[in-house]
Amino acid sequence: MKLISFRIQSQSGYGALKGDGAVDLSKHLGKRFPDLKSLLSSADGEGLKSAAGLLEGAAPDLRLEQIELLPPIPNPGTIWCAGMNTHSHFNEAKAYMGLKDLPPKPILFLRANATLVGSGQPLEKPKLEPIFDFEGEIALVIGKRGRNVPVESALDYIAGYSAFNDASARSYQQASPQITAGKNAYRSGGFGPCLATPDEVDLATMTMVCRVDGNEMQRMPVDDLIFSFAQLISFISEFAWLEVGDIMVTGSPKGIGALRNPRVLLVPGTRVEVEVSGVGTLVNDVLEQVLT
Amino acid sequence: MKLISFRIQSQSGYGALKGDGAVDLSKHLGKRFPDLKSLLSSADGEGLKSAAGLLEGAAPDLRLEQIELLPPIPNPGTIWCAGMNTHSHFNEAKAYMGLKDLPPKPILFLRANATLVGSGQPLEKPKLEPIFDFEGEIALVIGKRGRNVPVESALDYIAGYSAFNDASARSYQQASPQITAGKNAYRSGGFGPCLATPDEVDLATMTMVCRVDGNEMQRMPVDDLIFSFAQLISFISEFAWLEVGDIMVTGSPKGIGALRNPRVLLVPGTRVEVEVSGVGTLVNDVLEQVLT
Repeated sequence: MKLISFRIQSQSGYGALKGDGAVDLSKHLGKRFPDLKSLLSSADGEGLKSAAGLLEGAAPDLRLEQIELLPPIPNPGTIWCAGMNTHSHFNEAKAYMGLKDLPPKPILFLRANATLVGSGQPLEKPKLEPIFDFEGEIALVIGKRGRNVPVESALDYIAGYSAFNDASARSYQQASPQITAGKNAYRSGGFGPCLATPDEVDLATMTMVCRVDGNEMQRMPVDDLIFSFAQLISFISEFAWLEVGDIMVTGSPKGIGALRNPRVLLVPGTRVEVEVSGVGTLVNDVLEQVLT
Repeated sequence: MKLISFRIQSQSGYGALKGDGAVDLSKHLGKRFPDLKSLLSSADGEGLKSAAGLLEGAAPDLRLEQIELLPPIPNPGTIWCAGMNTHSHFNEAKAYMGLKDLPPKPILFLRANATLVGSGQPLEKPKLEPIFDFEGEIALVIGKRGRNVPVESALDYIAGYSAFNDASARSYQQASPQITAGKNAYRSGGFGPCLATPDEVDLATMTMVCRVDGNEMQRMPVDDLIFSFAQLISFISEFAWLEVGDIMVTGSPKGIGALRNPRVLLVPGTRVEVEVSGVGTLVNDVLEQVLT
């Protein structure tokens, strides 16, 4: 299933992509499961089973032009992000980041929920940031509560996959040894278009491609990751509880805009696409900061 | 007012300290304002005015032994934390952190909500962390939505103050150039006992004292801060919206346990107290990681 969260006429709902439209699952399941996170949280996978059952017989009842896509999980408990987590980006950026050796443990930072936007919603360039940059990544969503999870069983904790644009305010990032400010500009995290359940993807061949105004900027086979999905999940569960709906943004490959010559930066009007095989394409246009 | 969030017989509520007890405000205001964050969010300060009015005539109807204190704001949107933000701690720890000069901008990291515990609730030492450390700090809570807030008016955005123990898993912190993992152990952030409104504190003489098992470990006059409360608020509002209920944890002074000789570490049974003038004392005992 390719699950989506959406808004239609200022009402929030959730559903699944089907054919060239979508099926509104919240119409039928909304009383039991008010949002996608609660659907994923239900005991024994009951919510997902109900969704799959409904979807099988249903005809699409929403056209994609009718709805505004939201982040697939608009209300995650925690958004864990892995920094410098691909071999290609580590080699490209280690000098810029003041690093020498591959990290012994994952390099983590958090994003606030307010940074998230869905596919089709605009990214906002902060007024004071001249170097606003893209980073295409694969995101995963946690589907099962857990702690001290071994690497061997860590993939069982994944509810699904998505695409993410970890857009970065590089001046803020560079002004501090901690990159949090640069990674937390309001509406700077593109996330979507959908949450693709594990049966939709082939982990062996999964690839992320990031394009800016149609030009390919980044291409990442999943084995470019330094710490794999399973290793990230296991590591985080050493010190924190994995909670259903938590997001992990797993790392960007080489090709970021600030390190290109000439630079490729995000300015009002730029379109960024992040395509993940099995998931689809996240599309966000860049706007100047809006003060509302 | 010294506002609290609490639990009594598995019901959540909020109120204010009075005499040697507390007044249950949620009993009267809970329908209009389901929690303290919504009370703070109400238009024109209506919630706070109603609370003050109720409190004036009321006798305490809760004994403190009856209730379990929760973090004053259990559900913040974002928990912004300033690292290395006192002159005394910067000088003590710069070598340990690989830093040379005072930071040009605040050094920020985020905490996840799941790290918070209220006063009287236990802190949990992660099983795999041998160097679990205390950091006493002053926390502030945002009371007004804002963006691009000038330093001159930034204090107007503060709903109140609290005490915070930014307990740190130093091995995780040291294993990465980004300190997020070490700052996000489950139930590692003591926050409370109350949210003291600005009239309760004297900003000129405000002091934080941190004690471990009764022995003073840290003492910070507020002018030890490198970036003041107002500067932190203004800086963050450059790239993010300040939202009501957001927390800022403003920085710890010298005296952390890992840099003492001999070290003073948090182990099961240790009691940490963080006292902030005008606020009161946050008390947390340390437990070994509990797997529930």
